Amino acid sequence: MIDYQTNPSQYRHWKLSFDGPVATLAMDVDEQGGLKPGYELKLNSYDLGVDIELYDAIQRIRFEHPEVGAVVLTSANDKVFCAGANIRMLGLSAHYEKVNFCKFTNETRNGIEDSSDNSGLTWITAVNGSCAGGGYELALATDQIILADDGASSVSLPELPLLAVLPGTGGLTRLVDKRHVRRDRADFFCTIEEGMRGKRAVDWHLVDEVVPRSKMADRVQAAATDAAAKSDRPKDATGVALAALNRTIDGDTVSYTYVSVSIDRDVRAADITIKAPETAPPADAAAIAEQGADFWPLAMARELEDAVLHLRTNETDVGTWSFRTEGDPAMVAAADAALLANADDWFVREVTLFLKRLMKRVDVSSRSIFTLVEPGSCFTGTLLELVLAADRSYMLDGQFEGDNRPPATVRLTGMNFGPLPMGNGLTRLASRFLDDPSQVDDAKARIDEDLEAEDADELGLVTFIPDDIDWEDEVRIAIEERAAFSPDSLTGMEANLRFAGPETMESKIFARLTAWQNWIFQRPNAVGDEGALKLYGTGQRSEFDKRRV
Amino acid sequence: MIDYQTNPSQYRHWKLSFDGPVATLAMDVDEQGGLKPGYELKLNSYDLGVDIELYDAIQRIRFEHPEVGAVVLTSANDKVFCAGANIRMLGLSAHYEKVNFCKFTNETRNGIEDSSDNSGLTWITAVNGSCAGGGYELALATDQIILADDGASSVSLPELPLLAVLPGTGGLTRLVDKRHVRRDRADFFCTIEEGMRGKRAVDWHLVDEVVPRSKMADRVQAAATDAAAKSDRPKDATGVALAALNRTIDGDTVSYTYVSVSIDRDVRAADITIKAPETAPPADAAAIAEQGADFWPLAMARELEDAVLHLRTNETDVGTWSFRTEGDPAMVAAADAALLANADDWFVREVTLFLKRLMKRVDVSSRSIFTLVEPGSCFTGTLLELVLAADRSYMLDGQFEGDNRPPATVRLTGMNFGPLPMGNGLTRLASRFLDDPSQVDDAKARIDEDLEAEDADELGLVTFIPDDIDWEDEVRIAIEERAAFSPDSLTGMEANLRFAGPETMESKIFARLTAWQNWIFQRPNAVGDEGALKLYGTGQRSEFDKRRV
Repeated sequence: MIDYQTNPSQYRHWKLSFDGPVATLAMDVDEQGGLKPGYELKLNSYDLGVDIELYDAIQRIRFEHPEVGAVVLTSANDKVFCAGANIRMLGLSAHYEKVNFCKFTNETRNGIEDSSDNSGLTWITAVNGSCAGGGYELALATDQIILADDGASSVSLPELPLLAVLPGTGGLTRLVDKRHVRRDRADFFCTIEEGMRGKRAVDWHLVDEVVPRSKMADRVQAAATDAAAKSDRPKDATGVALAALNRTIDGDTVSYTYVSVSIDRDVRAADITIKAPETAPPADAAAIAEQGADFWPLAMARELEDAVLHLRTNETDVGTWSFRTEGDPAMVAAADAALLANADDWFVREVTLFLKRLMKRVDVSSRSIFTLVEPGSCFTGTLLELVLAADRSYMLDGQFEGDNRPPATVRLTGMNFGPLPMGNGLTRLASRFLDDPSQVDDAKARIDEDLEAEDADELGLVTFIPDDIDWEDEVRIAIEERAAFSPDSLTGMEANLRFAGPETMESKIFARLTAWQNWIFQRPNAVGDEGALKLYGTGQRSEFDKRRV
Repeated sequence: MIDYQTNPSQYRHWKLSFDGPVATLAMDVDEQGGLKPGYELKLNSYDLGVDIELYDAIQRIRFEHPEVGAVVLTSANDKVFCAGANIRMLGLSAHYEKVNFCKFTNETRNGIEDSSDNSGLTWITAVNGSCAGGGYELALATDQIILADDGASSVSLPELPLLAVLPGTGGLTRLVDKRHVRRDRADFFCTIEEGMRGKRAVDWHLVDEVVPRSKMADRVQAAATDAAAKSDRPKDATGVALAALNRTIDGDTVSYTYVSVSIDRDVRAADITIKAPETAPPADAAAIAEQGADFWPLAMARELEDAVLHLRTNETDVGTWSFRTEGDPAMVAAADAALLANADDWFVREVTLFLKRLMKRVDVSSRSIFTLVEPGSCFTGTLLELVLAADRSYMLDGQFEGDNRPPATVRLTGMNFGPLPMGNGLTRLASRFLDDPSQVDDAKARIDEDLEAEDADELGLVTFIPDDIDWEDEVRIAIEERAAFSPDSLTGMEANLRFAGPETMESKIFARLTAWQNWIFQRPNAVGDEGALKLYGTGQRSEFDKRRV
């Protein structure tokens, strides 16, 4: 089992240090610290375990260090910044492992950009040494790339010439769409193993500046200090410690405080149940900060994220996730109201951004997402996003026989109208009603109302509203049917239908780039016994199937 | 060899008829008319050969029948509209054949939409009988879908439940992005084999109307007549006959009047040389129409298109296409000027739209595109698009030793600034200079100037400008290097780097949807010996690898 939970005291691959408003995150990969046996993480190359620590470090900078306004990303190794994803690890990995690895690393890099765009953090990469492949892709996710001008430090994307695959962590997209490297120059750059350095690297927009090695430290420090001074993060606030999660994994169940997962292996489906808070949220931002990691939206999000990552990675046979909720809708509505009322507070802002990123993880999860709205549930505001993120939702019309609870309702809050956009830049409601934006207005007019099944159906919020007589059969058949389909075609279909409307750099990374990389990861030229990923380092050359597809 | 040239007298699968301003294109597939042995085209199912005829018919409606303002697409079979792509054909096809097939069919359907958007044609699909998979995808490419309400006629996308693949001809994208079917409803629709009919099909936006069978003919006729009356195509113009191309295929060369192809099999590269017209274009639209299919832009485009399709389909080992030109730049400029000055004329409009679609075919061709700009060449305006479409271009700086011709130049014309956009909706120049739109303005300021290598380089129009001493080595090494790389990773890289900037429905079809379909076409669940495509019709059930990727 791969565990996404860690903390700085356990890091094997990163050194995280703080100097007032500047944090430094130095890559220092432990060669012997691979997640699995069979490869050594030489030359600051990485595997999923290294990235799990990176993600943890970013979360801690966000939540535990509000005083930080700039992060310097660098290497603790003087010769090598980062050699990218470990090639032997890729060669040993199954297809689904490679794809899952790339998905998480993409999410982590998108998260870096999210913190630049929305959290007042500026990321500066100080490239001291060779920065290749995934190493350069990591740099591309930051705001500023400063390259040592020492005749040895360089940036490169050698995946194509060396390995017959693509830079799979957003590199191609960020070259042309973020750094606006001219496409023909990008073509040349991506076909040379040795990469580029010096003035040409600046002229081609590959890096922002080159600095003599002797002046690197000063220049990077100055840039970080300047950037931090412009940050809107509070210099004097107290961070919120991210305590260890309260998690129990036991066979087919995973339990946390607010989230529980129960797997039915016969139909390869997981129920993921989320509980509402039992009490109202604190009254103001100060009290919310005091509650810290116990503040329900944060606690719930951390648990749900861990569950999602666990299921993605460790339960690949479980093809359908059914979201359910339990508890008092009013308590969820109150939590949403607290998020909205205190949106300017740095900590509340972080919590909301985290909820946004979490929902995006659901959107790009290669699992069928069903949401089941039953009496006793609380699909309100933030949790209603799980209805809107679902491939299909079922809402009971009325009550179950013999159940005295009132009919299920759903409730819209302000959280459904802006703070939690999808990767395509639109809210889930706007993506849903591309046909007629007035339907979003119709929904907005019903904000804060408890909507029973017929109303929710009328507003287009749910897919089907069976009654008590049909419910069990209809839901059961849908889940069984899903288990009978080809998982691959479901993944492809969902990846297309979920993202109507515009594409953004982020959605292009998950769609265009990732889809091509997945294809290449399946092709004999890369992964066959004579494929480039398998033969790398053996001195043997791949004999490619030369046909263009 | 698969030949893309045909004409109505040779059609085996379509009946094309004309009644004043309304054309009717009725599918009537000859079961025994498959392109290859091993399958029968039952139930109006299709293979590439059927689509080649469809494309030819569309071109003839556009060019030969200016009086037509509406096209009715229907079936000559009373029970079946179209069963989609022939499944046994797919099962027998190699991966590259499936992908090439889908690319061409996608281009044909995009071309239908182009004629709706830009040519004054309205397409109305009269669904009489079951309309499944690719059949429904064809309907989705038209403007209006009228479904017979007879208890038997229906629309469906059964690819996922039946075949473990995706609707691969734009269906998923058009459902949510064109017809704005709500994503959860699209999910349901794409998982049921039997499809939908009647009121629900209208409510869900799957079709535009349902009409009793007895009233179908009248309703369709009325809709077509109404639409045709609103067309801006001329009622009284004479069409331009598309005479057979003058083509000779001889081993490693293909020759036409203005285009020639020469293949170097050692480096798996083709030189594609385009000749300028030898005379100035006719003076006005009437004279241009009189020249008809001999009008250079049209003649050249038809030849180049045929060469591109031939190379894509029949020369899959040839991985690099090097574009060259020969002739007087002033003649190309004059042809461009004629296109621009007569843009309002129906025939000139068709020629320009055809040039646009041709350049888009180049953009989505899975071949490395090099463009070589040498003395004697005429990369002007329309032909300069081949420089801008290239993955890389090389322009000789100065003259070749012993060659008295003046140094190579390139020339911008108005054709580079609007009439020939890429699938992403931007001109190639705008896509190239996303970084700084003022570079497009800088280029515009130099319109109609002959630009030598240094100027072209300064303006960012070409990639490299080697001189006589370096030229041969640099170009040769680049082409040899290309031949050594994995074709798959080149395809993936090029598909990403060529499309910086926004995505459109069209680009999403070629990127997101096609890339996922290519991946699925490679997966054992679809194409393995026990995969769904292989077992279809045998009564055996596929045992899927259940892991989600």
